[in-house]
Amino acid sequence: MSPENTRVAIIGAGPAGLLLAWALRDAGIDSIVVENRSQDYVLARIRAGVLEQSAVETLTRLGLGERLHAEGLEHDGIYLQFAGERRNVDFNELIGRTVTVYGQQEVVKDLITAHTAAGSTIYYEAADVQVLGLESKTPRVTFVHDREAHSIAADFIIGADGFHGVCRASIPPTALTLYDRSYPFAWLGILADVPPSTDELIYALHEDGFAMHSMRSPQVSRLYLQVDTADSIDQWSDERIWEALQTRLAVPGWTLNEGAITDKSITPMRSFVASRLSYGNLFLAGDSGHIVPPTGAKGLNSAIADVTLLGAALVSHYAGDDAPLSGYGETALRRQWRVQQFSQSMTEMLHRDPSDLQSAAFNYRSQLGRLDYLTDSVIAQRELAEQYTGLPF
Amino acid sequence: MSPENTRVAIIGAGPAGLLLAWALRDAGIDSIVVENRSQDYVLARIRAGVLEQSAVETLTRLGLGERLHAEGLEHDGIYLQFAGERRNVDFNELIGRTVTVYGQQEVVKDLITAHTAAGSTIYYEAADVQVLGLESKTPRVTFVHDREAHSIAADFIIGADGFHGVCRASIPPTALTLYDRSYPFAWLGILADVPPSTDELIYALHEDGFAMHSMRSPQVSRLYLQVDTADSIDQWSDERIWEALQTRLAVPGWTLNEGAITDKSITPMRSFVASRLSYGNLFLAGDSGHIVPPTGAKGLNSAIADVTLLGAALVSHYAGDDAPLSGYGETALRRQWRVQQFSQSMTEMLHRDPSDLQSAAFNYRSQLGRLDYLTDSVIAQRELAEQYTGLPF
Repeated sequence: MSPENTRVAIIGAGPAGLLLAWALRDAGIDSIVVENRSQDYVLARIRAGVLEQSAVETLTRLGLGERLHAEGLEHDGIYLQFAGERRNVDFNELIGRTVTVYGQQEVVKDLITAHTAAGSTIYYEAADVQVLGLESKTPRVTFVHDREAHSIAADFIIGADGFHGVCRASIPPTALTLYDRSYPFAWLGILADVPPSTDELIYALHEDGFAMHSMRSPQVSRLYLQVDTADSIDQWSDERIWEALQTRLAVPGWTLNEGAITDKSITPMRSFVASRLSYGNLFLAGDSGHIVPPTGAKGLNSAIADVTLLGAALVSHYAGDDAPLSGYGETALRRQWRVQQFSQSMTEMLHRDPSDLQSAAFNYRSQLGRLDYLTDSVIAQRELAEQYTGLPF
Repeated sequence: MSPENTRVAIIGAGPAGLLLAWALRDAGIDSIVVENRSQDYVLARIRAGVLEQSAVETLTRLGLGERLHAEGLEHDGIYLQFAGERRNVDFNELIGRTVTVYGQQEVVKDLITAHTAAGSTIYYEAADVQVLGLESKTPRVTFVHDREAHSIAADFIIGADGFHGVCRASIPPTALTLYDRSYPFAWLGILADVPPSTDELIYALHEDGFAMHSMRSPQVSRLYLQVDTADSIDQWSDERIWEALQTRLAVPGWTLNEGAITDKSITPMRSFVASRLSYGNLFLAGDSGHIVPPTGAKGLNSAIADVTLLGAALVSHYAGDDAPLSGYGETALRRQWRVQQFSQSMTEMLHRDPSDLQSAAFNYRSQLGRLDYLTDSVIAQRELAEQYTGLPF
């Protein structure tokens, strides 16, 4: 047993945990990160790829912007496609804000590079992680690392360990309500070695279902298809995937270029919010406290928003003002519910709902009416722009 | 049998039919209106009560604005209430547009007064109304009036005879698709002899369901409650109605004044759009072609929008330009689908959905998140203002 001490013990070395550790280090507050996966696994995990303007600003302010600004693709807007027509929504023109396409794994890579150079303490492949004494003044994290048992005493424990993590699960069930919604469809996502066929992301509602053309770099395209929740990836050959993408993304005079598919997976779609983000001296950030369906790209951005708020609250705490930390849960949840309704409404606007057979024909036309109004009204587009480029942190 | 001729035979003496007849008369085009109900019935029918700014403009332009401007209540905005808090949305301040509270039966009364003074031909209590030869150049309307059989030959027949009318039903089923959606809740509406307790309409989402405080005049309040679709009016005593209204509309420091209930009824909520508004020489306007749930008050306004468009198209036709009339159905439906998605989204934002038990807790909080964002964002309020005060006619 190695007894250790730190001010803030952070569970999870995803973007939320690593960024919080970095923000605390920037303010001279020491922390230790404990992660159950390997560094290679964390680095390879393919997730979101669109950063809100405020997320870019946070990363830049913390000295993490160099590669982001060099390699990230700043996007002025998106395309909304429906009924075979593609219409541009230019956020920059509408409200002077933009988003930046930069993969989550790139953010993680930048964070790990920075932490490694700075000599931060990060335990990867920590087994049997437990968080204890959450209601006491000396909560602890115990785990096994490299066959050695560890026990870290901290002022605070941060649950940045994702939806399936141990931290939220350590809050007594009687103290917690879980709000969630499952969607009756899933996303099949691919990475393909082909330059994107579009300058901006395309969100398309087709009679067959949703499709999306995103990108990761000038050489790598990221594309998505709405599929059935029961579908397995074996049912989707590369040929079938491209065929469906060609059908759903088609507009006259435009060509979707195909390339080698290097990654494919199916992700269920879910909305989830925990009724509290703090319990005693435990604070939740990112996916451990909430999940959004991927439409609108709010998952990573919500994690960065949480951590920006929580980092500042911890800095205030050590400067003698406890109010921001006491208010963290409520403040973060208020923003999160605004983000949830946006993610839900983007999802419902752009997917066919196979579970509502009775109203299916009406619903599809109502969705087209929504898209027709939205893409024709500057006032409506501004609302989309405000939410898509990100509410204030 | 009395053979008669007219240019335009209008079925239905509701606001759509009477207004179209008036607009045509204004342009020197003769028409005959055929209605199966009595004049007293038509005058007593209680329906919508909020006019979009463009509807007020149309009525004013056609010389029907005198009493409307004297007695109608111009409203700058509405209140949105949720989680026990009431927030004002000021349309006039946001986009310089307003709505006017003026009951549908007042509009009908003004129209009947004008038609009576002008000596228009309106057959009330017409029995066995049939529309024939829709695909021919000489369509006809036959009916029995005062025990005498009538047959009117016209250039065009207008179906302004509501959802249950004969006109839409006369289009061959193979030529028509009906898009519809039923909601798993209904509205209980009352008229009460008590001055409104509010200066602006209140739309409230409460954990028990939707409630609304509207008005008809400085002396008469109109209030609504979300109830179960299976509820009968007998289950809702006056006492129970006031109790539910007091609970759902409560905010600290505000009193809901009660008064004698003079009318109460339960209305199912439904969205409906016909795939076409024209067939041969038949044209549909208003409820015969589409129905919206009442949230957002778009039913009467859609009828006035249809008739404004159709009246102008008929005038163009007789001036030698047939394009507006050929395009009527498509143009009206495009606007209508934009209105449909708004009515559906207002409805879904403000009602509890008792049919979705699994996601009920999530959905309620997501609705609160939507309302919280909306009432806090000037950009989002502008979108509501644009749609609530009415899209261009």
